[in-house]
This record gives sequence, C-alpha cells and structure tokens, in this order.
Amino acid sequence: MALKLFELVGSDASRPFSPYCWRTRMALAHKGLSADSIPWRFTEKSAIAPHGSEKVPVMLDGDKAVIDSWAIANYLEDSYPERPSLFGGEGGRAMARFINGWGDITIVGGIFPFIIADIPNNLAAEDAAYFRRSREARFGKPLEQVAAGRDQAVMGFRKSLEPLRQTLKTQPFIGGEQPNYADYIVFGGFQWARVVSPFRLLEEADLIFAWREKLFDAFDGMARQSPGFPA
Amino acid sequence: MALKLFELVGSDASRPFSPYCWRTRMALAHKGLSADSIPWRFTEKSAIAPHGSEKVPVMLDGDKAVIDSWAIANYLEDSYPERPSLFGGEGGRAMARFINGWGDITIVGGIFPFIIADIPNNLAAEDAAYFRRSREARFGKPLEQVAAGRDQAVMGFRKSLEPLRQTLKTQPFIGGEQPNYADYIVFGGFQWARVVSPFRLLEEADLIFAWREKLFDAFDGMARQSPGFPA
Repeated sequence: MALKLFELVGSDASRPFSPYCWRTRMALAHKGLSADSIPWRFTEKSAIAPHGSEKVPVMLDGDKAVIDSWAIANYLEDSYPERPSLFGGEGGRAMARFINGWGDITIVGGIFPFIIADIPNNLAAEDAAYFRRSREARFGKPLEQVAAGRDQAVMGFRKSLEPLRQTLKTQPFIGGEQPNYADYIVFGGFQWARVVSPFRLLEEADLIFAWREKLFDAFDGMARQSPGFPA
Repeated sequence: MALKLFELVGSDASRPFSPYCWRTRMALAHKGLSADSIPWRFTEKSAIAPHGSEKVPVMLDGDKAVIDSWAIANYLEDSYPERPSLFGGEGGRAMARFINGWGDITIVGGIFPFIIADIPNNLAAEDAAYFRRSREARFGKPLEQVAAGRDQAVMGFRKSLEPLRQTLKTQPFIGGEQPNYADYIVFGGFQWARVVSPFRLLEEADLIFAWREKLFDAFDGMARQSPGFPA
C-alpha cells in the first residue's frame, strides 16, 4: 500500500512549498520511501477535513491518517525502524523536539515576513485572495508593509542563526556526520523560501550557506530540482 | 583516582557560579560521579595555565586534563558508557551540540546583561576589579549601564525562550522523560544567575519555571542547596 502525502502547492502543482511538507519530503527520502503526492491548496480545507486536519502535511498510510510533520517523522521512525534513523536514538528524538520548536520560531517565523509578499505570486487567484486576507489579518497590515525593510531586517535573522553556525563549526550537520531529521526541520524553511521568493536569505561566505547547499544536493538533488529561485 | 574539577568561585569558595561549571556539575551527578572541587578565581590564571586553559571548567582525571564543558561531557560519556547516558545515543550527542550553542547564546548571553552588575558583589576585591575592567571593556560601558532597563529587557529574554517552552508542552525535559545533558546545558545558566543575583528571570506561571524547579531538586537538591538567592 503506497503512502500518500497531501502537500501544499500554488498555481503550479509540481511546486510544493510548505516548510512543514518539505520536512516530511526529506524525512521520507531519508527512509528511502516515496509517497504519492496529492497537491493541496489553501482553500481546499474540505479535502483534508475528513482526515482530521486543517493543515498539511497529512500523510495517509492505507486507512490511517497521520497529521503534522512532527507526528509523521515519529510515525516513520517507528514504522520503519530497520531503515536509516531520523533521530539517531531516543535522546535525538527528544532533542529534535526542541529543534523543531526552534525551527518553527526562528526559521519559519523568522523567514516569513521576508517572503510573505512574494507568496501570492505563486498562488491561483482564489488562494492568493485567501492568503492575503488571512495573513494581513494576522499581521495587522498589508503584506507589502510586512516585507518592507527586509534588506535591513535580514541581518537580524542571520544573527539569530548563530546557534546553528556554531554547531557547523565543529560538525557538518546538526545530526552529526550525516544529516538527519534535525537538519530537515531547519532546511524545510530554507527550501520553502527558495521555492516562492527570490529574496536572498544567506551570504555565500556563511557556513550555513554551505550546509544548505549540501541539503539541496541530498537525495540526488531532490530539493534543488524542485522548481524555485536561485538561493 | 578521584576526578578533580576547577570551579569558578568568588569570595565564598563554597559558592561556585559559572554556568559552564554547573553544566559539568550536573553531568557528573547524572553519571553518579563526584569530583574534588578546586575553587578557582578569575585572577588565578596561572593555576590552570599548566593544563592548557584560560577558563574553567577544567577537569583532571589523573594526569589527563579535560578543558571546556562540552569536551568534559563527551569525555564522561565515553569514559563511563555503562552509567546513565548524558546524550541518549549518537543523535542526541550531535543535537546537543546545537543546544549547547543555543545555551551559550540565548541563555548565557541573554542572562548576562541582567546579572552583570550583581556579580562583583560576589567577588573578592581583586577579582571584582578584574571582572569590572574586562567586562566594561567588552560592553563599552559601566556594568550598571549594561544592566539598566533589565526589568523591561527581561521580557525579550522570556520571549527568546519560546523554543524551550514549546518543547515542555509535550515532554517534561529537553532530554525526554528524564533530564539529560541537553537540560543541564540550559539549566547551568539559570543556576549561575540564581547564585549571584536576586534578579527574577522567570514568571512562576511559565512552564520553564516548573522545569527549572525540577532541576533545582535533582540529585537530592544539589543545585538548590548551593548558596544563592531565591529564584
């Protein structure tokens, strides 16, 4: 029974862009698994509601629905213990929960204002209108105002990555010698940005730039081959 | 052969306060080990220079000196593999490196301005003068100016702890069901603050407050029994 994965897309169904869906895509590849992609758009709430979720990723394994990228990673680790580990043991699983929080807040939350005004360009009209309306309500201003000043603000973002930079001074990946789910948590946000926005998040001399390059290239260049802007 | 540990103290030799030394103290207790404490003061560089370090902790295991809290944790994990693990496997060891960076920057770096002006009160005259001179040079202003406005600034610090708060919503410790070195990395900073300063870092309703209480109580209340201010 093939796995199926609801993935957020815009007007181009072959261009998934959610940072959380990318965490799952990388996790599946790490396990040597593939899933049939079910393109899903912001306004298609009814397609996933029967599975008990309002957001993607939602993964279907036969009759079972697994919702939320963190739950999916754990499900894959537990269901395929003989395949390469996503966490490298129970200590790694527990600490990855912390890195998941850091990824949600510092990476996804940090990048969002920079790329928010570019996202509607990737969406069909109905989804673009939904996105603009809901996100402008959340931020309390037009998307273009949220993104204004990003050339300055990105310097604070780069500084906020210092714990990652420190880590990469002594080991090639957050997971150690090889990447694991800790890396995919963080990378998902960078891939999201690359797919939807030309905005330059990192400087080439940054250790994090080189780390990101390796993840673009991982699994036969899976992330790099997905359509997007040069990062 | 007993382990020996150089620990930073001030005028009271029974009151170690370095956040890094507290990481090591907790790690030793986790392994069920003890070390003979060698009180060390800021101006006693010559006592540790022969061991190749300018900073503490420095741990001596017979003729071997291990310097830096991270290296000591790894040394303990590798030297005592049959005792409770500090990392919970190789994935945890790798991810703890990232948490070490986060702990250095967000916790130690975040707390330092709040307690910096209280630290000289804990030091003998010569050390207090050294501390003030070197730290005022680093910050470019008097310690009291660094600490000014901390009642407002602490709110930003509390917000910066959000990845930890998110983690504690779904598990009791960063290490999972039980604390491990990931917790001690972060806790070391809070214990440092408690030993030297009455400044209130956390609100009682914060999940992180409850987590910290459990670590004050760990190992028969080792951290709580060390002299300090009410936290």
